[in-house]
Formats: sequence, C-alpha cells, structure tokens
Amino acid sequence: MENPETNHQPDHQFSEAERQAVYKTIYTRRDVRGQFKPDPIPDDVLARILQAAHHAPSVGFMQPWNFLLIRSQEIKQKVHDLFKQANQEAGQMFKQEEQRQTYRTLKLEGILESPLNLVITCDRERAGPTVIGRTHDMAMDVYSSVCAVQNLWLAARAEGLGVGWVSIFDRLELKKCLNLPSQVTPVAYLCIGYVDHFFKEPELKTAGWLDRLPLQDLVFFDQWENNHAENEKGLISHLSQAAY
Amino acid sequence: MENPETNHQPDHQFSEAERQAVYKTIYTRRDVRGQFKPDPIPDDVLARILQAAHHAPSVGFMQPWNFLLIRSQEIKQKVHDLFKQANQEAGQMFKQEEQRQTYRTLKLEGILESPLNLVITCDRERAGPTVIGRTHDMAMDVYSSVCAVQNLWLAARAEGLGVGWVSIFDRLELKKCLNLPSQVTPVAYLCIGYVDHFFKEPELKTAGWLDRLPLQDLVFFDQWENNHAENEKGLISHLSQAAY
Repeated sequence: MENPETNHQPDHQFSEAERQAVYKTIYTRRDVRGQFKPDPIPDDVLARILQAAHHAPSVGFMQPWNFLLIRSQEIKQKVHDLFKQANQEAGQMFKQEEQRQTYRTLKLEGILESPLNLVITCDRERAGPTVIGRTHDMAMDVYSSVCAVQNLWLAARAEGLGVGWVSIFDRLELKKCLNLPSQVTPVAYLCIGYVDHFFKEPELKTAGWLDRLPLQDLVFFDQWENNHAENEKGLISHLSQAAY
Repeated sequence: MENPETNHQPDHQFSEAERQAVYKTIYTRRDVRGQFKPDPIPDDVLARILQAAHHAPSVGFMQPWNFLLIRSQEIKQKVHDLFKQANQEAGQMFKQEEQRQTYRTLKLEGILESPLNLVITCDRERAGPTVIGRTHDMAMDVYSSVCAVQNLWLAARAEGLGVGWVSIFDRLELKKCLNLPSQVTPVAYLCIGYVDHFFKEPELKTAGWLDRLPLQDLVFFDQWENNHAENEKGLISHLSQAAY
C-alpha cells in the first residue's frame, strides 16, 4: 500500500488561462460531416487523441473500449454502402413531406472523404460478469465508451482535427461488416481529419431544423419541473446569460 | 440563409498552451467519492459547468438532457438509502470471497457529504418520435446525455470541483424517488463539490482491483484483432509511450 499522501495531485488548481482553454474546446467542438482535407494525421497527434480516449472514466475501471482504425478504402466503401441504405430508410420515417425534403439535403457523414475512420467499441465481457458499478445498470459499460468518445472529440478539437459521429447504420450489419465478436458493441463510428474550417454553430441549428434550448428551462431544483426556486435566483440569472 | 463564410470559426487553431490545458484536464480528472468540502459552489461557477454540459453533442441536436440539482438533505438521504440497499445486493454478486471482502471496504459515493447532487437525465421524447441520427439506434439520445456528463466532468475539474458518478441504484426506485416522468431516464447521478485533494490515479487502480490496460493492446487496424500492421509501426511506438 502506497502512502496515500504521495498519491495526491500536486497541481490541484487550474489557472484562468487553462480554464478558458477547456471552455474554448467545449464551445468550438463541432460534429463535422464535410470540410475534410486529405492530409494524413501524424502518428504523435493520433496517439495523443487515443490516449485521451483511453483516460476516460470507466465503470469499475473496466476500460471496455477498443479502437478500430480504418484506413482501407475498401472497408470505408462497404460501410458507406450500409450508411446509404439506412439513410434512405431514415428519410422515409419523417411524418411531414417538408421534413423529408430537408432531410435529403443534409450531409450527415464524411466516411469516404475523411482520411481516418475510427470505431470505438464496448466489450461487454472485458472484466468478467460482475463489474463494480454495473451491477444494477448493465448499460454503464457502454456509457464508459461514450465518455471515451467525448474525450477523444475534445482532444481532437484542440489538435485542430474535425470529428463526426455517424449513427445511421443497421447495427447488426455494421458488426458483420467489421467482423466484431458477439460480445463487442460498436458504440461510435467516427470520421476524423483536418478540416478547412469549423462552423461557429451546429449545422442543424443553421439549417433551421432545431434551435438551441434556453438552459434555464432545463434546470430543476430538488423536484422535477421546479425551476423557479426563490433562493436560486442568482443561479437562474447566470444560467440565462450567453455561455460565450 | 446566412452567408456560410460568416459562420466559420475565426480562431480555428489552438496554441500549444491551450492544448496542454485540455490534456491536463483529461488526465487529472478523477471519479471522486470522498474528500468533499462543504464549501458552497458559487453561482457563476455552477452556471459555467452546466453550460459546458448543455454544449455537448446531441443526436439530431435534440438536447435531450435536464439537470436536476439536489441540495435538500431529505432527498439526499432517501437516495442514500436506495444506494445502501443496492450496494448490499452488489456486494453479494462477486464470486470470490476475497472480492466480496475488498468490495465492502471501497467507498463508492459521496451523496451526503457533497454539497450538491446533480441528476443528468434523458427525455426520450424531447424532439418527437423521429430524430435525425436516432432512426437506427434508439440509444443515441442516452449517449448524448452521457456526452453532457463528460463535458460537465471536465469543466468541473478545470474549476477545481470534484465529481463522482454513482450508479449503484435500482433505476426504477431512483426514478420514483425523484418523481421522474416515465419518458425520462436518469442517466447519471453525480456528487459535486470542492475537494481537499484529487488523487493522482484512479482509486480502483491504487486499491489493486484492476490495472490500466496498455493502450497498444486495444488498438486494431482495419480488421478486428489486427494490432501488428507493418505500416503502423510509428503509431504503435507512440501508443506504447506513457501518456503524461
């Protein structure tokens, strides 16, 4: 057993500049579907964003993720075919003809143009059948892999790399296409590369599909739907200010 | 329609110092179960970490999250009772007596000591039945709420706030206790507060429960389980170096 005090972080506090950098990453991160440049990603940069993913929180420290890097144009093409099929089905699912028309104009993936595709998976059997913290919610391992996705996404933004999450696939077809074993779930299919530019706002906001919700409407106090607590006026006033 | 060029981010690139700050946050973030101080969290700080969560990626820009802030000692106590019951059940689930003994010594939550408990939820009906990107994977909305958790967790670390994710509950009992409507899933129950210190390493690693896996064993190239590609030697060499 180590002396616990030697296990404390020496640099507990962040400077104002460091804090600002973290918020800059969070606010300028975008879901990138186009604007990819073919430039290769240097090995050291790619290793850094994968390390960032690997240092995500995981339930019971099980680290259930794998990282499947796809550079083969042949495999990308097969995955793109699966996307095309699912996307055609998706386009039919909207009730209003106007929505169906808008849907068809949206670019929702950059599978073929991005130099790197990355699948982040979850191995449901990574740490045996009983996992600390997963005993009462079997989805916690998949949530850990999602945390890895978000860590990678933010690290990539700081490196100037665009990342787009493609989710319009038949999951079983995708598993078959990637030869994943039965206990391995493909959590996120990501398209990654340097980009010409990042957009200021989410593309679905710019396209008028949905607007950003006012944060103060989403925050409740002690009870569901209680958002007008008398002693929370200070917080509510801060919540209604623009974030950046 | 805006002129698309005015929708480009002006500050595309990050400085080396900004990148370092992002990695510092990712590597020094811990799952905090103790060491909480009773000091209140100032409203501006709390608003900033909630804004960070609200700017997470969400499928079809549906922003399915709510943020239920719990400061009431009475509600915390009820939630703690639910944890205690589930945790007792959990302790029986491990096969080996040695694991069961170690499990009982682990502190897995800070519900009562942390000044703020926060539930991040997912409203499965936030944007109607058909959501862009959720058509073929109905879990994508819950994954969006997990991304909000991770954004908040990192922002909190940069603010010097500890966050711990408690997942050992009967989910239906927790929903009942918090009066959540049927379409709202409690994704994460978080304990938040300033801390005496952050640990250098995950507590389950220090306790000898599990070790951190070597990243290079988790990375595959084009095919599942192919981790020795001839043309990837440069990357593999970077992956096997310590992250920080």
